[in-house]
Amino acid sequence: MLRCAVVGATGYTGMELIKILLRHSGVAIAALTTRQQESIPVHQLIPNLVCKTDLVIRPYTVQELNQAADVVFLCLPHTEAMESAAQFRRAGKTVIDLSADLRLRDAKTYERWYGEKHTQPVLLKHAVYGLPEVNRKRIAQADLIANPGCYPTAAILALYPLVQQKLVDLESIIIDAKSGVSGAGKKAKASTHFCEVTENFSAYKVNSHQHTPEIEQCLSGAAGRKMRVTFTPHLLPLERGILATVYAKRKPSVSPQRILDAFAKSYKNEPFIRLHPKGSFPSLRHVRYTNYCDLGIEADSRSKQVIVIGAIDNLIKGASGQAVQNMNIRFDFPEEEGLN
Amino acid sequence: MLRCAVVGATGYTGMELIKILLRHSGVAIAALTTRQQESIPVHQLIPNLVCKTDLVIRPYTVQELNQAADVVFLCLPHTEAMESAAQFRRAGKTVIDLSADLRLRDAKTYERWYGEKHTQPVLLKHAVYGLPEVNRKRIAQADLIANPGCYPTAAILALYPLVQQKLVDLESIIIDAKSGVSGAGKKAKASTHFCEVTENFSAYKVNSHQHTPEIEQCLSGAAGRKMRVTFTPHLLPLERGILATVYAKRKPSVSPQRILDAFAKSYKNEPFIRLHPKGSFPSLRHVRYTNYCDLGIEADSRSKQVIVIGAIDNLIKGASGQAVQNMNIRFDFPEEEGLN
Amino acid sequence: MLRCAVVGATGYTGMELIKILLRHSGVAIAALTTRQQESIPVHQLIPNLVCKTDLVIRPYTVQELNQAADVVFLCLPHTEAMESAAQFRRAGKTVIDLSADLRLRDAKTYERWYGEKHTQPVLLKHAVYGLPEVNRKRIAQADLIANPGCYPTAAILALYPLVQQKLVDLESIIIDAKSGVSGAGKKAKASTHFCEVTENFSAYKVNSHQHTPEIEQCLSGAAGRKMRVTFTPHLLPLERGILATVYAKRKPSVSPQRILDAFAKSYKNEPFIRLHPKGSFPSLRHVRYTNYCDLGIEADSRSKQVIVIGAIDNLIKGASGQAVQNMNIRFDFPEEEGLN
Amino acid sequence: MLRCAVVGATGYTGMELIKILLRHSGVAIAALTTRQQESIPVHQLIPNLVCKTDLVIRPYTVQELNQAADVVFLCLPHTEAMESAAQFRRAGKTVIDLSADLRLRDAKTYERWYGEKHTQPVLLKHAVYGLPEVNRKRIAQADLIANPGCYPTAAILALYPLVQQKLVDLESIIIDAKSGVSGAGKKAKASTHFCEVTENFSAYKVNSHQHTPEIEQCLSGAAGRKMRVTFTPHLLPLERGILATVYAKRKPSVSPQRILDAFAKSYKNEPFIRLHPKGSFPSLRHVRYTNYCDLGIEADSRSKQVIVIGAIDNLIKGASGQAVQNMNIRFDFPEEEGLN
Repeated sequence: MLRCAVVGATGYTGMELIKILLRHSGVAIAALTTRQQESIPVHQLIPNLVCKTDLVIRPYTVQELNQAADVVFLCLPHTEAMESAAQFRRAGKTVIDLSADLRLRDAKTYERWYGEKHTQPVLLKHAVYGLPEVNRKRIAQADLIANPGCYPTAAILALYPLVQQKLVDLESIIIDAKSGVSGAGKKAKASTHFCEVTENFSAYKVNSHQHTPEIEQCLSGAAGRKMRVTFTPHLLPLERGILATVYAKRKPSVSPQRILDAFAKSYKNEPFIRLHPKGSFPSLRHVRYTNYCDLGIEADSRSKQVIVIGAIDNLIKGASGQAVQNMNIRFDFPEEEGLN
Repeated sequence: MLRCAVVGATGYTGMELIKILLRHSGVAIAALTTRQQESIPVHQLIPNLVCKTDLVIRPYTVQELNQAADVVFLCLPHTEAMESAAQFRRAGKTVIDLSADLRLRDAKTYERWYGEKHTQPVLLKHAVYGLPEVNRKRIAQADLIANPGCYPTAAILALYPLVQQKLVDLESIIIDAKSGVSGAGKKAKASTHFCEVTENFSAYKVNSHQHTPEIEQCLSGAAGRKMRVTFTPHLLPLERGILATVYAKRKPSVSPQRILDAFAKSYKNEPFIRLHPKGSFPSLRHVRYTNYCDLGIEADSRSKQVIVIGAIDNLIKGASGQAVQNMNIRFDFPEEEGLN
Repeated sequence: MLRCAVVGATGYTGMELIKILLRHSGVAIAALTTRQQESIPVHQLIPNLVCKTDLVIRPYTVQELNQAADVVFLCLPHTEAMESAAQFRRAGKTVIDLSADLRLRDAKTYERWYGEKHTQPVLLKHAVYGLPEVNRKRIAQADLIANPGCYPTAAILALYPLVQQKLVDLESIIIDAKSGVSGAGKKAKASTHFCEVTENFSAYKVNSHQHTPEIEQCLSGAAGRKMRVTFTPHLLPLERGILATVYAKRKPSVSPQRILDAFAKSYKNEPFIRLHPKGSFPSLRHVRYTNYCDLGIEADSRSKQVIVIGAIDNLIKGASGQAVQNMNIRFDFPEEEGLN
Repeated sequence: MLRCAVVGATGYTGMELIKILLRHSGVAIAALTTRQQESIPVHQLIPNLVCKTDLVIRPYTVQELNQAADVVFLCLPHTEAMESAAQFRRAGKTVIDLSADLRLRDAKTYERWYGEKHTQPVLLKHAVYGLPEVNRKRIAQADLIANPGCYPTAAILALYPLVQQKLVDLESIIIDAKSGVSGAGKKAKASTHFCEVTENFSAYKVNSHQHTPEIEQCLSGAAGRKMRVTFTPHLLPLERGILATVYAKRKPSVSPQRILDAFAKSYKNEPFIRLHPKGSFPSLRHVRYTNYCDLGIEADSRSKQVIVIGAIDNLIKGASGQAVQNMNIRFDFPEEEGLN
């Protein structure tokens, strides 16, 4: 049994991770940590957890964790995760970091978008971006995996075949994305107050969301050249899910059918990508509580725009499910283990 | 007192219209009609109506209506409205039609997008498109006003200065719009069942929504040439409001400031347009139960895309409020009468 | 023009009060206060306010307030309100306090249920409980009005005729009440996080809610003897409204018709009570954004229980609307002024 | 492998049943039926079903079903279920009926409350009421199981120890219950339109809900004498869950502790009852997507009322989960199989 630790287990991604790991036949949960002083039984944090469990979330010392676990999932706020990752790497642990700290290869870019000093720039060279559909081979070898952001997961999966196969004008890419409130985390804020959210909808961080460089870095890699995207996030009055509607101008020489073929071929063997048939499009209900990314493609629009709609559960494929998918790849478990 | 009739008063737009007309100091509600056999007291249909009223919705003969009213608002399903409009025009009434029947100047286009025969093509020549910010002078003279659709109102108001002043690439226009459920009407359908909508979000009629030609017709008029747009509607899990996020590529010669100036100048005297200051963007809560269209503009994006976000209440500025605004213009009432 | 000040104008009840006072033809808003350092334009706090206003909420000195206003509405947290009330009473102002501080006649009871010292017990003798349907005559003379809590308003109005006319067993009274989230105030808390509330429902403070003694005090007054009630509040996943379902055992000698007659007679001239016809019951939608209390009565149940369902908007009839109703009574305005 | 058929598989309870049976290690789904002409792949009906399945819902002949299945679950509208049950019993199948048709022992009572003729009164003698916590032994022997209604499940489980052990005044029982919208079924109706439900709350069928005699029959059995209850159902603006707040007057001779002990003892070995510790109460979030019934008890209220709050998922413990629990008991599977 692979021994797993979840560091920072009381937030939304930590809670989802616990639920998934409890269903996984090849792992044991070795430690669940919190910085709060009192310990919290898992069944109290997640009361509708039907699997009986006696697990308790409590403070741990680094030494305890190093003895207890083989793989460490970091569900920490950004800036805290980088320090923690360095520490566990030094102890030889495999680290899967769910924060944003290790996703950008360039510390300067991180500092510009996150407004914080990056104290572990050396780690950035070793971290592998954990998007299996793009990076599966490298993930299988990685000891430091930077688990993608929720918006980037949905956006990149909706765009990757188009960009990598150069089927669209790279200057034309627009990502209009809509997220549920759990994406904002568990902490109470004015912006997550029920009365502020219900019967409301708005864009936020227009042209300035910190997931922008992560999307651009991954797509630039696919395109083989630097590229920029327009990314507008919106807040939906619902709990979980991201739906990204992406637009890209089809190149004149590329037929609509070739677009469809590109998706079919790229994602043929992907266990967690579901392509909708022509004329059908994803709904958040189709993906919630699953690790699927559903994609619907309109390649033949009146205006030559290719429209791709991607839907994920932001806490599963957009966070904890994908983290386990990465662990499965790294430790040679069946890729779907624990995820259905 | 101007005597008003609302034909088809039991649906969502009819109900909103009644509420607005009751607040209007210059009109009397002369008739409220339904095809159902039993009559319905207004205070039963709209129980939180605080203004006391004894008005009753009931079946009327055409003759009764012709005697009772000076202006007729049609809140009928499409195809029914065109017949009714013809009839009331023959009787010399001013007609404000809230359906889609008279919005498109070309009957063929109507038939292609609505899948129905247009039986009154002659009316299309006389109908004036009732978007005050674009057509105020013609509305003031009109006896047949085609009140705009909800999506077109939000989309056109967000794009008009850009297109009319040719500040953007006309081939690049994308409208990503999100609407509350009341836009689908009051009739119970599988798609409006609470359990289908709550905690869900999806696109629908991708590349094929019937409001597309209406948007294109109005913008083509502004551009002075035929143009096409990409329009993707989505369904929000909330009752009322449309938020349209529109994208258009800024021309290389046009500065971001010039974009902002264009909006400021175009809408300077508009009583129902509110421009957000730079960096601020509308929310549906800001506009619900009002006739405002709020606009937020990002002119200086990293990717040269101009992003404009427009928000309206789909039942007010997107329907009944705008119908009354049109009536006010036509009959020389203060434009805001009844609307605040 | 009566000059009004709202002290603590940035919370939910303050915001509602501003909206109502702006519609009131007999008053001028003389001051809107906050303890925060920066001032806030009202149209920023309430962006869908259609009436144009240049009012600004800002810090005031007591002296400024005493010069500016004739009547002072206190929208302060409990314990702060009592000090403030004392101060404004000393300056001769009429005070309408929306907090709980002056509702209970007995300081000891206050201290037991609110867990705080009562520093102004003398005020309690002078304060008049501001429930117009019960206390209208005394309100008309009062200079210190304790505006009722939201739950007590709904519960007492549903029970008053039964208790006062001794039609039911006073030992049998049960109040099962359900409130929207705005009742918990504007401050962000774990319990008001959207993800905690949506698709959820639960009871809270079972047998221990601080509104219990307020209900009991008012009903005991009506009964002419001390009585106790069972009161269970629940939290609804919606923004505004309280629906109270109350149960009381009909006395054997009392016919169902006599129950209905008692309500009809008690509330015959009440402008803000609407009795549903037999077999029909209130919905929160019927009352939201209004000052109405809707009541539906089932007097003839199989089990001899009288069931009364009362519905109000917790921020209007349950707070700010009732405060203005009280002001109207006190200053001899038409009772409905500003409230429809 | 036990071969199961689900008759009427396209509604909400059918869909839940499919999901549960797919997780059950001891059964095979032998047939899923619909009366609609076209067949529907299960993964289309339930798109977020992660377990891959090729199952198809289609019309079946009775003969086909009799050959295919050992146990038949009926997810049919009432009045249809009784005919179907008779047919499958004649063929020797074990029948678990999720409708109301076989729950009441007296055909006359059925006819009075459901307003329909009962055509199979003979079956009523053989049907066993499938509430495991009350009837486990008889269920283990039954070939015709009447699966309880959702409201009765929550209400009876909250009241059973009190009534059976005669700890409360049997004349005093009040059930104030609140249900999510899925309880109203999948069919589109005015009352389930999103715009009607969101931000709304109301009681319905006050004193006249058809689940009343089912509750009374079961509790009368426990009490050993005929008794009546007051039952008020309400509609919550959420998808799934029932929370029942029940009230009963504690007998003077019974101590609060004895009440708590009665629950502890009655439900000691129940795998799907979870008792909250003193002072803590259930939430719908705690039980949704589970077969649990959570109970919180306030035995020591100021007014001698015992307050018990019971929460279930109306589609699981209130319908399909309980049906599988019954099957497990009947066919000697572990009682929790498929249910966690």
